[in-house]
Amino acid sequence: MVEWLDAATTPDGVGDPGRVHEEGRRARMAVEAARESVAFLLGADASRVVFTSSATEAANAAVYSAAPARPGAPLISAAVEHSSVREACRRAGASRELAVDQSGRLDLDQLAGWLGDERPALVNCQFANHEVGTLQPVAEVVGLCSELGVPVHCDAAAAFGHVRIAFDALGVDFLSVSSHKLGGPPGVGALVVRRGVRLSPLLVGGSEERARRAGAENVPGIVGFGAACDALVTKIGEVSRLKAEAASAAGHTSLVASAATSVGGVQVVGQDTPRVAHIVCLTVPDVKGEAILLALDRAGIAVHSGSACSSEVLEPSPVLAAMGVDPDSSVRVSVGWSTTSEDVSAFADAFPVAVSAFRDLGSGRD
Amino acid sequence: MVEWLDAATTPDGVGDPGRVHEEGRRARMAVEAARESVAFLLGADASRVVFTSSATEAANAAVYSAAPARPGAPLISAAVEHSSVREACRRAGASRELAVDQSGRLDLDQLAGWLGDERPALVNCQFANHEVGTLQPVAEVVGLCSELGVPVHCDAAAAFGHVRIAFDALGVDFLSVSSHKLGGPPGVGALVVRRGVRLSPLLVGGSEERARRAGAENVPGIVGFGAACDALVTKIGEVSRLKAEAASAAGHTSLVASAATSVGGVQVVGQDTPRVAHIVCLTVPDVKGEAILLALDRAGIAVHSGSACSSEVLEPSPVLAAMGVDPDSSVRVSVGWSTTSEDVSAFADAFPVAVSAFRDLGSGRD
Repeated sequence: MVEWLDAATTPDGVGDPGRVHEEGRRARMAVEAARESVAFLLGADASRVVFTSSATEAANAAVYSAAPARPGAPLISAAVEHSSVREACRRAGASRELAVDQSGRLDLDQLAGWLGDERPALVNCQFANHEVGTLQPVAEVVGLCSELGVPVHCDAAAAFGHVRIAFDALGVDFLSVSSHKLGGPPGVGALVVRRGVRLSPLLVGGSEERARRAGAENVPGIVGFGAACDALVTKIGEVSRLKAEAASAAGHTSLVASAATSVGGVQVVGQDTPRVAHIVCLTVPDVKGEAILLALDRAGIAVHSGSACSSEVLEPSPVLAAMGVDPDSSVRVSVGWSTTSEDVSAFADAFPVAVSAFRDLGSGRD
Repeated sequence: MVEWLDAATTPDGVGDPGRVHEEGRRARMAVEAARESVAFLLGADASRVVFTSSATEAANAAVYSAAPARPGAPLISAAVEHSSVREACRRAGASRELAVDQSGRLDLDQLAGWLGDERPALVNCQFANHEVGTLQPVAEVVGLCSELGVPVHCDAAAAFGHVRIAFDALGVDFLSVSSHKLGGPPGVGALVVRRGVRLSPLLVGGSEERARRAGAENVPGIVGFGAACDALVTKIGEVSRLKAEAASAAGHTSLVASAATSVGGVQVVGQDTPRVAHIVCLTVPDVKGEAILLALDRAGIAVHSGSACSSEVLEPSPVLAAMGVDPDSSVRVSVGWSTTSEDVSAFADAFPVAVSAFRDLGSGRD
């Protein structure tokens, strides 16, 4: 990691990778090395990886690129897709949102029916849900779409770095990922574009990223993203760090779920559905998620309630609402590479106390 | 600077500023402190500053936000605007490009005529040209536009941090800036939006940046941008660092120009026009700019030829072409906070040798 940063910088700062001079070449080499690292973890060729400022930008770019191919045609997504997908679909054309079951899995029969109705411009299918962790049937969606020539975009931000993703085998046209979701720096993401698919750039006015995304590259962020991907493919004993972290996360979230569901009425959303290991969404009847969040924060534990990605405003999560889950009474617990057994024990101690206190007070709901 | 970074991070990494928990609050405070710093240097209220991933994204967002207010109406820019402005105008509607004089200054009479023809959706006027440094008549453009209620976007990426910008007094509706152009990290920029002007977000799907720009914030980059702005307002003796750097840059570029123009036929573009102090564009008849670039690179000096912002491809600069300057025979020299007198002396030694060598070889042009 440090070697890369050294390679990308001069004593005076970071070079511009678009330049021909020495500083530019060093920055270019560092960016391309990071591209190889991200691509390797994605199971894609490096030439397919376009760096962006976030998964949000990547998802927006995929939707806006695909929409004009069939003006007015539906842009399909599940009701539990990230807002960067759903909002972009609403802005770019005729958005249609698929129903989901109680675990958040999209309805394949409904998709098959809609594909028969009218050929859409794009179908979006996230790899894993960002609020409850449910894995979506991406392969089945690709199977339905590919025979009709309908492009598929997969938002893999919640899954990348936590489960194995094989971009080339997956068969999607576009795939969006984010650096900070796997331990890299925030402010960096990537859009992976299948060979033969043309990406119409969202940001224009420069030929950076092979004319697929204009704007000066975030060299330090990109280098950090690459380093985080490299770390995940290194071996810890017999297995990759990704697998080791996933196993550790499964252990942690299993303990979180046990401790939480020992409290009366608390349930895990999508309990019996295949899920990524690092996210647990809990429903806590009769107590506001915000109240639990604040109580746990006082105990030094950071969790989330309501909508996973809306900042500043605390509004109910449309994702949970689409599953029939009360967003106001839910808490999302994520574990990461830095989570320890002590953190999990602290949660197991603090959570039942917090819920009981609010229930006793009767002040958890208004 | 270090205090800010400390404030934004926990032992486990960078918090999400959109979260209510402790890590989130620390990141939020660091982002808001940086926003105050950027706003202070811009002469704007912090609430007017929207962080982006680059000046390119900021300029795109301004154009795309303004265009739909008058569908089909002209989007006016000078032919020497940055490609992020010109490309966005071409994509968003009916782009019209103003002529410029030999120094790159836009034609105010032509603008007045066009404003009389048809009310445009937006007029773009850069603060200073990014390739030759010429200051544009922004105040006069605002004067012409404001009485007609026509919004103005100013790309100030080449000027911010090098000359005094007073956003509130300038009267423009949108202003775009970049961090790396003033010594901050790459991958961060800002769009400044006048009070009362509605910004329709370019990136959607999250309420970050007060719902004006979706996507996880580049917290480390933003903090670095703020720190660079803070550094420029600190006093060095009697004056701000910005003024001290500008004076130093003026000295350096004056020596660069003297050394260069001592070589037969070499001229400074816009010699007698008010310019920013840190950019000198030289025309070198009968020698390719690329050849000089590579020769100077071997001497450890990084300059630029052709187009200032097109990476990877070496294509002729449309900006220089619009001024009637041969892009193939031009070299842009920029000095920065890290430039020393020794660097300038090295240029003064190497430049005449490189030009003479290529002229003697007769191989400078093909």
